[in-house]
This record gives sequence, structure tokens and C-alpha cells, in this order.
Amino acid sequence: MRLSLEANLDYDFPEPADVLLAVEIAQMADQHLVEDRLTVTTATPLAPVEGLHGIGRRTWTRGEGRFLVHYRGIVDVDRRAPDLSGCAMIPLHDLPGDAIEYLLPSRYCRPDKFKSFAVELFGELEGGAKVTAMADWIRDNMRYVPGSSDERTTAEDSFLTREGICRDYAHVLIGFARALDIPARMVSAYAWKLEPPDFHAVVEVYLDDCWHLVDPTGLAPIEGLVRIGVGRDAADISFMTIFGSANLVSQRVQVERIGGSNPD
Amino acid sequence: MRLSLEANLDYDFPEPADVLLAVEIAQMADQHLVEDRLTVTTATPLAPVEGLHGIGRRTWTRGEGRFLVHYRGIVDVDRRAPDLSGCAMIPLHDLPGDAIEYLLPSRYCRPDKFKSFAVELFGELEGGAKVTAMADWIRDNMRYVPGSSDERTTAEDSFLTREGICRDYAHVLIGFARALDIPARMVSAYAWKLEPPDFHAVVEVYLDDCWHLVDPTGLAPIEGLVRIGVGRDAADISFMTIFGSANLVSQRVQVERIGGSNPD
Amino acid sequence: MRLSLEANLDYDFPEPADVLLAVEIAQMADQHLVEDRLTVTTATPLAPVEGLHGIGRRTWTRGEGRFLVHYRGIVDVDRRAPDLSGCAMIPLHDLPGDAIEYLLPSRYCRPDKFKSFAVELFGELEGGAKVTAMADWIRDNMRYVPGSSDERTTAEDSFLTREGICRDYAHVLIGFARALDIPARMVSAYAWKLEPPDFHAVVEVYLDDCWHLVDPTGLAPIEGLVRIGVGRDAADISFMTIFGSANLVSQRVQVERIGGSNPD
Amino acid sequence: MRLSLEANLDYDFPEPADVLLAVEIAQMADQHLVEDRLTVTTATPLAPVEGLHGIGRRTWTRGEGRFLVHYRGIVDVDRRAPDLSGCAMIPLHDLPGDAIEYLLPSRYCRPDKFKSFAVELFGELEGGAKVTAMADWIRDNMRYVPGSSDERTTAEDSFLTREGICRDYAHVLIGFARALDIPARMVSAYAWKLEPPDFHAVVEVYLDDCWHLVDPTGLAPIEGLVRIGVGRDAADISFMTIFGSANLVSQRVQVERIGGSNPD
Repeated sequence: MRLSLEANLDYDFPEPADVLLAVEIAQMADQHLVEDRLTVTTATPLAPVEGLHGIGRRTWTRGEGRFLVHYRGIVDVDRRAPDLSGCAMIPLHDLPGDAIEYLLPSRYCRPDKFKSFAVELFGELEGGAKVTAMADWIRDNMRYVPGSSDERTTAEDSFLTREGICRDYAHVLIGFARALDIPARMVSAYAWKLEPPDFHAVVEVYLDDCWHLVDPTGLAPIEGLVRIGVGRDAADISFMTIFGSANLVSQRVQVERIGGSNPD
Repeated sequence: MRLSLEANLDYDFPEPADVLLAVEIAQMADQHLVEDRLTVTTATPLAPVEGLHGIGRRTWTRGEGRFLVHYRGIVDVDRRAPDLSGCAMIPLHDLPGDAIEYLLPSRYCRPDKFKSFAVELFGELEGGAKVTAMADWIRDNMRYVPGSSDERTTAEDSFLTREGICRDYAHVLIGFARALDIPARMVSAYAWKLEPPDFHAVVEVYLDDCWHLVDPTGLAPIEGLVRIGVGRDAADISFMTIFGSANLVSQRVQVERIGGSNPD
Repeated sequence: MRLSLEANLDYDFPEPADVLLAVEIAQMADQHLVEDRLTVTTATPLAPVEGLHGIGRRTWTRGEGRFLVHYRGIVDVDRRAPDLSGCAMIPLHDLPGDAIEYLLPSRYCRPDKFKSFAVELFGELEGGAKVTAMADWIRDNMRYVPGSSDERTTAEDSFLTREGICRDYAHVLIGFARALDIPARMVSAYAWKLEPPDFHAVVEVYLDDCWHLVDPTGLAPIEGLVRIGVGRDAADISFMTIFGSANLVSQRVQVERIGGSNPD
Repeated sequence: MRLSLEANLDYDFPEPADVLLAVEIAQMADQHLVEDRLTVTTATPLAPVEGLHGIGRRTWTRGEGRFLVHYRGIVDVDRRAPDLSGCAMIPLHDLPGDAIEYLLPSRYCRPDKFKSFAVELFGELEGGAKVTAMADWIRDNMRYVPGSSDERTTAEDSFLTREGICRDYAHVLIGFARALDIPARMVSAYAWKLEPPDFHAVVEVYLDDCWHLVDPTGLAPIEGLVRIGVGRDAADISFMTIFGSANLVSQRVQVERIGGSNPD
């Protein structure tokens, strides 16, 4: 399906500060970028850099006073919601080098903390069924509560309090998966049909020699996710990392399906 | 200088478990691998994989019962101890994509926690002089106490208690550097003249468009460090990651200078 | 001096919840309660209970919908700012039983974390001079930043980031003092001349067989502090502990000196 | 029943350090001290102090070089295992002042972390049945693993990893109980029939206007527990708090039933 995306960020910088934007559509096999344009109201020229591990794109810029970011893109997404139940787990000693870091503890996700629980609940299941059961458990046991978490909230915190937003749901799933030796990483995305519209965070797990998207919140169809970037957890994939401080004025994200005589 | 390295690991696995070894010499511009050989007493074939970010090599294997690892290598190191004082800091918006992750918080190193302190002590200094002052401060204010830390000890813990071993010294330096917007990563290494001989952990900071080795412990000369791998912090660079549990029987590391009519 | 105090709390309870109020003036040797009156707009009768360790008073009540607390009191404070420099530290083995708990780690204050630092900076000083130097260090090195901390912020966090409000200043001082074997507890108080007027949090240290008030913020004179209650740290002395949730509508505290032809 | 207790502690102090011993039998309504004797090989006279909140006794002394503690006591315990199922919860606003602190967060037990889980699992039950269900859940879901925890391990850690020793079982129960507004405190004790014999840690919950003993480990009968002291969590009730450091040489605890023609 073809999606038209738009993001408008409006911030105020009391002091000048460097900013790393990560809002651009990643070019990948299952999402083909048709066209896009990033505009920032700043005197500093934009400096594009590649995303983490060469996936996607990011842009350095600098905020000073009022700071407006406008991003608009069109993308063709060609993806079906995967049925993970038939996917096999890769034995650890067959994992490629670049998947290994997604087994390790990171800022917000410490797999050792989830080992006992994950073994008990999901240990008997096979391969992809483990991950499906994890996502189901999270959906059934957590409450989506905007404002209940912040940049200090870890996967353990969210697991204990059983509330959070998409980042926290993702962290808990990453914790569970890594605890059972399944590489798991976090994905920032635009999400078709997400209500209210916003940047979204989901998870990718490594099964059957490739990465599979999973959304533990269940708030948006996998077929309409448009990846921006990937990382170990929320620390890596912020859509705007400010090396200083700034105040949010307003922020708006829109995702619309366009064209297509063949609705699906 | 030419160095001959040897590592002998002897462990006992009560239950079979996958093992990721990271003991092999990395081939890099300033350290040229002459020859090496890794032998593991296990029925499972060794599965080599690349190191994190393509630097160095790691090997998957599997422990079961008595588990002996023997590694031996010869390497030519061609490196001078860098004088960081003349190195310039790269403005954030000029940093390449693959350096960015080394600014971010990781499992053991949360730069936001060190911001106030680092600004106060090192904020006035320029570029590489900042890093030199950080390493000096750590050397002057921390005590090297084997056994004082474990796998839960973070950079904050070490900064507060002011004791630790090489991993902890490295974590504090990484915390300081990232707090002042200098990318910093952790390096596992063999170290010539380290007493007692063991695997070593040091730091690399990104200045003047390249990575520079720094050893905040001051226990071994930079000229005699042989990198194994790099990562965000201790979570990434363990010389042996066991996906299960095992008991240490004994472990021995040796580094010797060989040959060379031209001693330096 | 004679002080007239007033506190007005206005909250809204979406669901009924039990509430523990700790806003009443404690009757103590150096502060003599003349009269006071607590009024709460609630159907539930007020249930007075004593304060922690028999110091001061607290009141159980119950919030439901709009919840207004009005407290008004008159108190004679007869206290001079203590000169701690002449106070001796009590050897541990002479400490009375009820001072011991104020040496131990509590929710927000873990003395072991501050040991190295406190020994280095204050270890050479004698008795009360230690405490004076600690309070001076805190005043010189921390920034008073409303909004910079919340109910998760610990003494370690505040020490690292070097910012906070009165509760955080108090936590750091408690951490330092306990680290050097000086019992230290937290005190909630009304404070004459505090700007802007609000509930205040200060510290008491045990020296020379009695407790001495110290205000590490330096924001209000010791002579005009009116204790409400004491505890190990902020977890114990909240002026309003809500067993559920409520929204703040407004809150106002006033402290005025009254009467007295003999101004001091 | 009449019990004869004995504790032998043998430590070595590289440097002199103050020591607080908490090994003596508390005189309480359901445990009547017949006789006891504490002997310590030290030049410093023993300084007895009362226990926390006036319960039990503690003794200040000082270690220097080899340090031997011998304690021997005889006590009549007159207690039945309580049936908590009939006990009512005290409404918060009827709780006496000295029970309140046992609702609050402490060093190792933060009730807010357990709220969601406790409400879900135990929220529907009434009064004492809640506590019985909590203790059952802990017994069914945790593994008793000596060496799996240390002085940094919190209730959250133990809940997540689902392993620990008596202190950790107690912490989780305290976390659960406080989360549902039931005051809960930790008790150090001698325990008849505990295997292997050692100091034990259990819990007291406040129901029906008094404190009731609960042993979430189920390792020793309630009828044979002999309280030493109480506190908020493990930070308060250590049998030996060393203000410095010492090495354990050996430690032995014995509890035997004596006399009585009427075995029960």
C-alpha cells in the first residue's frame, strides 16, 4: 500500500543546541521510499548521516530559538503481517555477528532480570510461538497509560507496574525475548491507523535468519508500519535527540493511505 | 613491536551452554596480525563471526563438562602513545553516523549522570585536553581494588565508591566523555607489561576524526595494547559470554615481546 | 519569637482515598505550641495519631472529590542557630538505641555510596565541623532547581546531578553524615523567611547527645524553623501521604512573625 | 515449648571497628526469656541498648583482631501458628501511629513497584486471606538458592529473578503487603527445626490490631520462632552490623527443644 506521511515538530530552544533528527523513512526491502523532503528552519546546514548499523537515515542540525521541522514522505509498503508461529529460533552458535548485540543488556532492557519469568511462561513454546505468546501476554497484562513513564523508566519498571506506552511495551518484549536467547531490537516507525497519530515504537525479533516486526501494543497493523530506524532500545531511536534542552511547542504526525484502486 | 600472546581458559560446565568467545586479535591499521590459532576442546565445531561493527572477530562454540580454550597469536603493533592535547573535538553535527551511538547511554554508562561534574571539572578545557584531564582525575581519585565490583556495578557506582578494576575505570571515563559530547567506547585488549597479566579493558575516544586509545588505569603502555574488540561498555566486550553458567577452574593470559634487534 | 503559620491545601480526588496529613506543629522543647486548628472538608472524622517515634502529630482523614485542608497555628520558637563547630561526635558504642536507625540506609539515602567521598572531603575534620563543612559543600556545589527532582530521585542522583530542592539537599547531607557515622534524620518544617513560602525540609544530626538542626539550603534561618515531624528521609515526612491519587488544585503556606516589642 | 538457643560467631577484624550485635532474645508476650548470657572476647565493655522501637535488645561492642561472640539463652515460647484467614484488615484511618512507617517504602521494599501485581493477584481477597495467599504465592514461585542474593538485592530484584534466601522471601512479602495497605515489618529470629540451622528472617503483618508472624519460606514452624528484633527490612535487623569490615571465620546457630513431659 502507498502511504503519505507528515511530521511537524515545533520546539523552542532557550539556548542553541545540536540536534539529531531521526524522522526519515528508511529504504528497506519491504518499504520503498517514493519521495520525501525534510525542512528545518535553522541557519545551520543539515548534515545527513546514516542510521545505526546502516539502517535508515538521520540528520544533524542545530536548534536556536524557534525550531520548526517539517517532514513529508511517500512510501510503498509491501509487507504482510508475519505468522511467527512457523518461524524457527536460530541456535545461538548460528547467529550472525551483527545480531549478537541484540541479545545483550542495554540501557533499558536487562534480559537477566526476565529470565525466570520468561522461562516459566514461554520456555516450553517453540520458536516464533514464544514471541507471539510474549506479545499476547504483554497486551493482556499491561495498560496503555500515556504519561505513566519517562526517560528513566526501564523494562523492569514497566514489567512491575504493568503500565506504559509503546516504548515500554517494546522494552518488556525485548527483555523477554533476549532472556530466551532471541535477538530483539527496537524500531521507531510511522504507523498507519495508529490512534491518536504519533511516532510509534515496535520490536523486531530475529528468527529464521531474518528480522520480523512485532507490535506488542497491537495498536497498528504490521502491514502499515514504516520504519525510521532501529536500535537496542529507546536510547537509540529517539526521533529527536537534543544535546541541550528545548521546550515542546507542538508536534503532529499524520499517516494516510493514498491512491490504489485495490484497497486492502 | 612484535608481541606474542597466549590465553588459556579452563572452565567447567555443569550443563551444556553456548559460548561466545572474544579473545582473538583484531586486524587493524595499527596492529598487524602475523599468525594466530584458537583451539577449544569441544565436540561442537567453532563458528567464527565478526566483531561488533565489523571490528575484530568472535567465535561461537559450546561448553559441556570440562572446557579448555587455548589461544595463541603473534602481532606487530605499530603505535605511539597519542598526545591527545592537540586533538580537536569534532562538533556534534560533523560526527559520522557510526560514532553517534557512543554518545548515548548504555547498560553501564549513563552520561546524564556525569554532566554536572564533568562540566565543572573539565568543561573549560579544549578537545583532547579534556580527555587527558579526565583520565588523570580517575587515576588520582580511584583505587584499583580487585573484587570490589561485579557485573552489576555501573559507572555511577564506581564514581561514587571510587574503587574498581579496569572495567570500572573505563566506565567512568566513558561516562565523563559522553557527558561532554565526546564519543567514547570500550575496548577489550591484551596488554603488554600489565601486572598481573590478564585481559585488559581500556577506552577509545573520538577526536579529530578518529578513535584514540586511552587507559585510565595507567597500568599498561598504550604502545603495547592489542585490541580484541570494541563496544559500548562491558556488556559488549566480555572475552567469554556464557549463555548459561560455568565455573572457572583457571585462567591465564601472557603477553611477551619477541624478536627485534631494535628494542623500544 | 512568636510565629503565626497557615497552610491551605486544595486537592481534587477523582476516587476516594485515605490521606495521612502531617502538617501540625510538633510540641518540643525549643518550640512551644500556643494554639492551632486543623480543618478538613470531609465527611470522615479526623483521626489524630502521633508522629514517627512519638515526635509531633499526624492526622488520618479521607479525600473524596474536592478536598480542602486549612491549618492555622501560633508557636513560640526559642532557639538559637547552633554553632556546631564545638559539638563532639558521639562514639558509635555510646549512641542510644533510638539514634541507631538514623545511621542505616533508607529509601533515599544509602550511606555506603558516600563513604569514599565523605572520608576524602570531611574525614579529617572533628565532630560538628564535619557537618558544617558538609552543609557548606552542598550549598556551594548544588543548584536549587524547582522541578528537577521527583519522588524517585535519590541522594545519589542528587549528588551526581548536583541539583534539586530542599528534600534533595537534605538527602545528600544525610548521606554524607551517615557515611561518617553521624546519625542524621530528615525534618519537615515551616520556615520563617523562606522565599517563596512553602513547606521546608531540613536535617537533624546527632552530636553531643542531642539532635541539632541544619539547613543545607541555607534558605531560612534556623531560629525560625518550626518542626512538623521527623523521619529517615523524604519517604517518612510527606506533609500529605495519599493512599490513592489526587490532583493538586492549589497550595499555600504562610509564616509570619507576630507581636513582640523586642524584635530579634 | 521451652527452647535452648546458642549462637557462636567467629570473625577476624583486620582493623578495629565498632560492632552492633543484635542476637539477643526479645522479651515479648508470646516468648518469655528464662535466662541468657552474651559473651564477647573484646577489651571494650559491652554497651547494651534497646532494639528498634523498644522491641528487643542490641549491644554495642568493638571488634579488633579475632572476635568471638557466644550467646546462649533459654526461652519459653507460647504461640500457636495463627490462622490469618479470619483476621480483618484495619482501615488505614484506624491504624495507630507506630504502624504507619511499615506502610512506607524502605531501603529494600518499595510498595509502589508491587501495586499492580498485588492488586491483580490478591486484591479480591479479604484481610488475612490476602496475606496467606501472598505467602503461598511466594513459596510456590520462588526458589530458595543460598548465595543468589547479597546486600544490594532488593525486593524487586528478588521478585523478578524469583530466587533468594529468607531475607529475600521476606522482602517480597513485605512489598506485596504494603502495596495493599497492610503494614508489614521484618523480624530476625531464631527458628526451631530450621535446616540447616541459622539466623532466620520472617515477616510480621498488622491485622486485627496486632502483629502476626508469617514465614514465607515455610521452612520453620511459627510456634518455634524466637524473635530477636524487628525493622522495616533487612537494613534494620542484621544480627551483626559492622562499622568497618571483618572476615567471617565461622558461624554456628543451634536451637533445641528442652525439657517438657508434654511434647507438642
